[in-house]
Formats: sequence, C-alpha cells, structure tokens
Amino acid sequence: MNFTKTEPIRFKHVDYAGIVFYPRFLEMLNDLVEDWFAEALDRPFAKIHEQNVGIPTVDLKVQFKKAARIGDVLTKQLWVINLGGASVTCGFRFADENDKTCLEGEVTLVNVKLGDGIKAEPFTDDTRTKIEQYFLKF
Amino acid sequence: MNFTKTEPIRFKHVDYAGIVFYPRFLEMLNDLVEDWFAEALDRPFAKIHEQNVGIPTVDLKVQFKKAARIGDVLTKQLWVINLGGASVTCGFRFADENDKTCLEGEVTLVNVKLGDGIKAEPFTDDTRTKIEQYFLKF
Amino acid sequence: MNFTKTEPIRFKHVDYAGIVFYPRFLEMLNDLVEDWFAEALDRPFAKIHEQNVGIPTVDLKVQFKKAARIGDVLTKQLWVINLGGASVTCGFRFADENDKTCLEGEVTLVNVKLGDGIKAEPFTDDTRTKIEQYFLKF
Amino acid sequence: MNFTKTEPIRFKHVDYAGIVFYPRFLEMLNDLVEDWFAEALDRPFAKIHEQNVGIPTVDLKVQFKKAARIGDVLTKQLWVINLGGASVTCGFRFADENDKTCLEGEVTLVNVKLGDGIKAEPFTDDTRTKIEQYFLKF
Repeated sequence: MNFTKTEPIRFKHVDYAGIVFYPRFLEMLNDLVEDWFAEALDRPFAKIHEQNVGIPTVDLKVQFKKAARIGDVLTKQLWVINLGGASVTCGFRFADENDKTCLEGEVTLVNVKLGDGIKAEPFTDDTRTKIEQYFLKF
Repeated sequence: MNFTKTEPIRFKHVDYAGIVFYPRFLEMLNDLVEDWFAEALDRPFAKIHEQNVGIPTVDLKVQFKKAARIGDVLTKQLWVINLGGASVTCGFRFADENDKTCLEGEVTLVNVKLGDGIKAEPFTDDTRTKIEQYFLKF
Repeated sequence: MNFTKTEPIRFKHVDYAGIVFYPRFLEMLNDLVEDWFAEALDRPFAKIHEQNVGIPTVDLKVQFKKAARIGDVLTKQLWVINLGGASVTCGFRFADENDKTCLEGEVTLVNVKLGDGIKAEPFTDDTRTKIEQYFLKF
Repeated sequence: MNFTKTEPIRFKHVDYAGIVFYPRFLEMLNDLVEDWFAEALDRPFAKIHEQNVGIPTVDLKVQFKKAARIGDVLTKQLWVINLGGASVTCGFRFADENDKTCLEGEVTLVNVKLGDGIKAEPFTDDTRTKIEQYFLKF
C-alpha cells in the first residue's frame, strides 16, 4: 500500500529556469511525511510536539529525473522499505500527470525524544502496526 | 583541495525543535555550489543564466549526523569525486565549531543548455581545468 | 465577493517558538493571489509566463494580530479595494477556526510586461471585468 | 545611526522572472533584524530563546520600488523610528550598488515572553539604551 497525495507546482517552487528548485522538492517530501503521520499513523506533528517527540531525517537519497514546471500537478507516493526499532526507511516517488517520474528516492526518519539532548525512542506498538500497513507488497 | 565557506545558523533555518529544518541545509548546500561556481570556477550563476545554461542537481545523497542549532556557525566543505563530460559529482561536509560532522554526502550536477528542452552540454575545457583543482588528494 | 481558500499550518511554516515565521505567511499570501488569478481571473501563472507577463507586488501592508500554530487551519480571504489601469489593490485576511484574525492587510500588484526591462501594461478588459467581481460590497 | 549589512542576491531568492520573490526579501529583513539584535543590542536570538523571549513582528509596511536580480549585492539599512515600552518600530531600506532603493518600509516588533501564552514584556533598560543609539538623527 502506498500513501499518496497530489501537489501543484506553484510560483514559489520554481527558479529562474522555470523549474522546481530542488530544496522545494524536499519541503514537498516533508509535507508528504507530515501528512502520512497525521492521516495514516494518527501521529499529527502538533500532537507529537506536545509530547516532546520529533522525527528528524537522518538519511536521504534522491534521484532527480525530470524537471517539474509551474502548473504541473505531481502525485507524491510514499511506502515503507524498512522498519527498525526507532527508525523507518521510506521509499518515495513524485510523478507528473503522465506518470513520468520527476524524482524518487529513500528517506530514513528516526523517532526521538527531545529534551536536553536528542535520544532515539522506539515507536509504540500502535504506530508500528500502522507503519507496517505501508510495506510494499509484491 | 576543498572549497570552504562558513555559514551561521539563523532563525529562519530552525524548526519548532530549535534545530535546522533539513530542506534549509540543502539551500545552504546550493549556496555553497553557487559560491564555488562564482569564486572558483569563474561561472557566476548570473552569467550562466545569460547564456541559457543551468546546472540542475540530478542526484543527492545526504547523511544527517548531528543537529545544528541557532547560533552555531557551520563550516561547509566541497570537493570533487568524479568529473564526467557534462556532469560533476561533489562530496560535501558541514561541520560545527568543534569539527563534528553535522551532515555529509554527495551531490551530482549536470551542465545543461536550457531552451525548448533541457539538454546536457559538456563543460568547457577552462571549466574542466578549474573543476579538476578540487579533486580530493590523498 | 471574497475569494477564499483554506491552508493548514505545517511543520515547515513554524519557527522555534512554534508559531508561523512571518515570511511564510507571505508565501501563503502569494499562493492565495496565484489561486485567485488561476481560478477566478483565468490567468494561471504558467500561462502568464508564456506571455512574458508578471504581476510583481509593489506595496504591502500587514498587521499580524494573532500567532498561528502547527495544526491550525487558516481561512484566507482576498477582495479588491482599488483597480487602476495596470494595478490592483487587494485586501486580505487570514483567520483561524474560531474566525479570529491572524493577519490582515493590503497588497498592491502591478501587471507588467517582462523583457529587457519591466513595464506596466494595462489589464485586458476581460481581466478587468473578472477582477471587478471581487470589489467588496457593503 | 543606521545598522547596515550587505547581502548578495542568490539563486534561491529569485523567481521565474529572474527577480527576487518578495517573501525572500522579508527573510532578508528578518536576517537584518536578527543581526541588529545580535551585534548591536547584545541580544542574539540563541540567547533570547533560552530566556523564553521572542520578538514577533506585528506590523509591516513595504514598498517594492525596483526589482533585484541574481548577482546584485544589496545594502540593507535599519534605524529606529519609535520606541515603546515593549515595542520598537524600525525603518528599513534595501538599495542596490548604485544606491537605488529596491525596497523600503517600516516594521514593528514586540518583545514578548513565550510560555502558555504570548505576553508583551518591556525591554530592559540596557536594551533600551542600545536601541536608542539607532534613532534617526537629522
């Protein structure tokens, strides 16, 4: 099962060449992860914050394959590749209206407790069960 | 030889946990590449643009190892790992004042001609010679 | 008649105090103007760009009245205060779920032709007619 | 006395028309205020945060007079127009290398205590004295 959202490419995303400036793609990726946590894992970031929990990104691999332009509407997909005790590695793919891949990659997030320092903290069983629904099935 | 710049972590870079929001790190990486092109390769982006040339990022790998906080001053380093006809792969590392690595990775850029489409175009000999100065020596 | 859109406050919008960093509010305002041009005025920015037309902001007044936090869903409203030959001044207001005003103000945009320089160019009659629908009625 | 900093226009600042996207100007303004607090008022934001103090922007007026382009180096100036108990209104002006005004305006900041709510808190005498150095003299 994939978690899927669409996002239009806007004026604020594009550079002088009229194509998306790549750090904006990563804001879009962060939005996708945020939506997945809120809508699929019942872990909205507003609630996480009250619990002094965060999920920083520790590893990122991206291949940018096709430029996206203002007015394009991208379909953003996310799925789970690996689930550790306190970490999860997700695959992602952004495609245009013709299902051409604009970018794809992997992102690893760690569940942490924020306080004096930042310490990894295992996902709860409930969150693990919800995350497992997004393992890619073949 | 490394290309090196420093950058202070500012209010605009940090998230609600007080640490740098990772897309902002990639804006800082883009600034580093931009400075390298302007100061070391004699290819300022303003000039590149007039020639309808761009250098989009096609591949990115990053490991985020240590959170950076407002007030930290990071040292950003960039060097060359591989030079193809129209592409260059650079290593990079951002470290804090104690030389602890905050992030490191590799980024691949392609020299392109912008027009009706986007086509790879070989670097000039002059640019190649300048890029080669930044191969990591052991 | 008001042009109205909603927008959730996201992780990327907030600062270390957990409230929206004000330049992000202005990105949200730009999105609102962009949506208004695309959906109400039949002037999507992708199309405008092909015609070498732009609508830069020349004047902005904002009062920030109430902090917005991650998880809030803001209602963004825009209406027309004044319509000149090549410029339009819009009022705007962003309110939270309890209809408390988070920010309000006025923004003036100018229709311009982009080329060697930037020159004001009158709106077409069709665009004027559509803009006039959004004058605030009392 | 003015507080003055320079800032180069970078790739990340400009839009598809090759001119600065105006929310980026306001990030540059926030950087200017941040530098003023750190360098002139001895109130670096990192230190302010530890004290649960913030200085949100409550009012902003900007006139955008001249487009700025990649490669331009702007001179950013800030001075004090009004000092209240817990608030300060500053004038600002960004000019290009030919001293042409790109933007100018006024911004009002309030010193607040962050906690369960957000409450105005008077500046200390030391901070007031330092702020007063930046009143515009005629």
